[in-house]
Amino acid sequence: MAVFPDLLTATPLSDAAAMRLAIEAGQRVRGTTYPNPPVGCVVLDAAGIAVGAAGTQPAGGLHAEPQALAMAGQRARGGTAVVTLEPCNHQGRTPPCTAALHRAGVARVVFAVSDPNPVAAGGSAWLQQQGIEVVADYSRPEVADGYLRPWLHWQRTRRPHITLKTAATVDGFAAATDRTSQWITGAEARGRVHADRSRRQAIVVGTGTVAADDPRLSARYDSGELYDNQPLRIVVGRTEVSQEARIRGENFRQIRTHDIGVALEVMADMGLIDVLVEGGPRLAGAFLQAGAVDAIESYVAPAFLGSGLPVTAGPEHTSITDITRFRTVSVEQLGADVLIRAVRS
Amino acid sequence: MAVFPDLLTATPLSDAAAMRLAIEAGQRVRGTTYPNPPVGCVVLDAAGIAVGAAGTQPAGGLHAEPQALAMAGQRARGGTAVVTLEPCNHQGRTPPCTAALHRAGVARVVFAVSDPNPVAAGGSAWLQQQGIEVVADYSRPEVADGYLRPWLHWQRTRRPHITLKTAATVDGFAAATDRTSQWITGAEARGRVHADRSRRQAIVVGTGTVAADDPRLSARYDSGELYDNQPLRIVVGRTEVSQEARIRGENFRQIRTHDIGVALEVMADMGLIDVLVEGGPRLAGAFLQAGAVDAIESYVAPAFLGSGLPVTAGPEHTSITDITRFRTVSVEQLGADVLIRAVRS
Repeated sequence: MAVFPDLLTATPLSDAAAMRLAIEAGQRVRGTTYPNPPVGCVVLDAAGIAVGAAGTQPAGGLHAEPQALAMAGQRARGGTAVVTLEPCNHQGRTPPCTAALHRAGVARVVFAVSDPNPVAAGGSAWLQQQGIEVVADYSRPEVADGYLRPWLHWQRTRRPHITLKTAATVDGFAAATDRTSQWITGAEARGRVHADRSRRQAIVVGTGTVAADDPRLSARYDSGELYDNQPLRIVVGRTEVSQEARIRGENFRQIRTHDIGVALEVMADMGLIDVLVEGGPRLAGAFLQAGAVDAIESYVAPAFLGSGLPVTAGPEHTSITDITRFRTVSVEQLGADVLIRAVRS
Repeated sequence: MAVFPDLLTATPLSDAAAMRLAIEAGQRVRGTTYPNPPVGCVVLDAAGIAVGAAGTQPAGGLHAEPQALAMAGQRARGGTAVVTLEPCNHQGRTPPCTAALHRAGVARVVFAVSDPNPVAAGGSAWLQQQGIEVVADYSRPEVADGYLRPWLHWQRTRRPHITLKTAATVDGFAAATDRTSQWITGAEARGRVHADRSRRQAIVVGTGTVAADDPRLSARYDSGELYDNQPLRIVVGRTEVSQEARIRGENFRQIRTHDIGVALEVMADMGLIDVLVEGGPRLAGAFLQAGAVDAIESYVAPAFLGSGLPVTAGPEHTSITDITRFRTVSVEQLGADVLIRAVRS
């Protein structure tokens, strides 16, 4: 079961507060459900108290809604189901969630994003036919530009969604020229990077970064302990990764090409939907120039180095038309540092 | 008079809300009061309704408190004065504000920052001796790290407070290599830069920037209209500024040195307290390497260029110990862009 008793409440919630909890539930199962979407669901009783909270189980398991409804039991009757994705109307490996919601007697369904999958869609219309009030597109941007974006992108394109992670000073340096520190940012930002890794299917770096920094690229807690979910570690590039490299191990794969289009095809064939590219500058530049970066997570340290390892290696001469722009979705202060999340417009 | 009727309210305010208005009042007179501090004051009546709001007048004029008290009249009796700086206890060109507060019959005084000037200090103790309740250090960091920081810095050091403004992509480029655009950031960020200029005493650029971009460096509204307060425009560097340069005019001054220490002394002699350095990379690098940057206002565009004009020109080789770090005070999304304000730790 992927149920979350700690998300239940003793007092009534607004739809907005319930959606925040549903997003949290969905975030918690992110990276474990693909090719199914990592949905989060919170069930409120008739008074608005959260009596059920769950996320999608790994493929073949239960969706979020039936688990949250089972948790709620009779208290779902006359209540509201708040879901990050439109409930499916499709008899797949599991029965349709719409039927489960109707059977449980919920009076309202609030969801953030319509199901783009034609096979599973139509849930909203069917629920309304049963006399259930449906509120669609609630907090849509937060979910569609947020944690559900990789799955939505893959539904549309059948290509992996690429997030480029950067960590640099305001003057754009990821490390000093002598590479005396791998980390420009502080402990809070570093902790966030590891938590983020634990929710991805794969992390990608270039052969240059492996040779220079010999990173492990595992997702670790501050204590050094590993997160349960460890993403696949992929190295892209022609140079063979040394047998002694720390990145090698069971979760390791090298894609021996410099062609980003080819690398994306290989990743699609591997069933990858949510991929994080962590650098170095040449690989980041190659993904950007191929137009293959769908979102960025940029950690900015309020600091200056003057020279050092660049974030991206681009062409020697540029014009303003060479710029790749993203649309900021959220900005967050993490200790001294700032995290900018942005998506391709 | 520097009174602000638009800041008055019809309903009661918390101390926190009143302090936000007092900060707004102080911000509005920033850049017009030096060497006096740009103080903001809001007077609440006994019920908490804002009945007076004012900022310091230009040197020789009234302080914020007596103006706000005059606006409040009899309604100040039993009320609260909320001030960004500890009320002065000093008979200078104007009578002490403490006496005015006592005479007006306020029951409480809430202030953010203690007066560091030994001549004017002691207001808090005197007010308490008169039986007035005093709440000190209220919202202190917001004011001390914010708009009052340049004046506080100058009180302590008698040197101008230098804020470095940067505007660049995530990969640290202020423009493309062909300089096809002066602006990497969007309209909202640009508007903010002009508003910020209007509150400074002086803006500084290097001779290289003047030669390359021929900037006006005036503070303009979107309409092109000039702000009332136009800062002095200073060019630092040995090369003579062309007679045709747009930066020339009545508000123009060149400091012909490459030595940042000398430039700071000249600016101190000119009575400058709040100075904004806008670049280019060589001048920004020189101020940073001289340890002369007290705060930064960094506009970050969620975009990548790959190469271009750097934010700072530093030494060719750097170690992590060469880093100049700042402490983030606030982060704000401005359209697609992000503004990071940070101060030297």
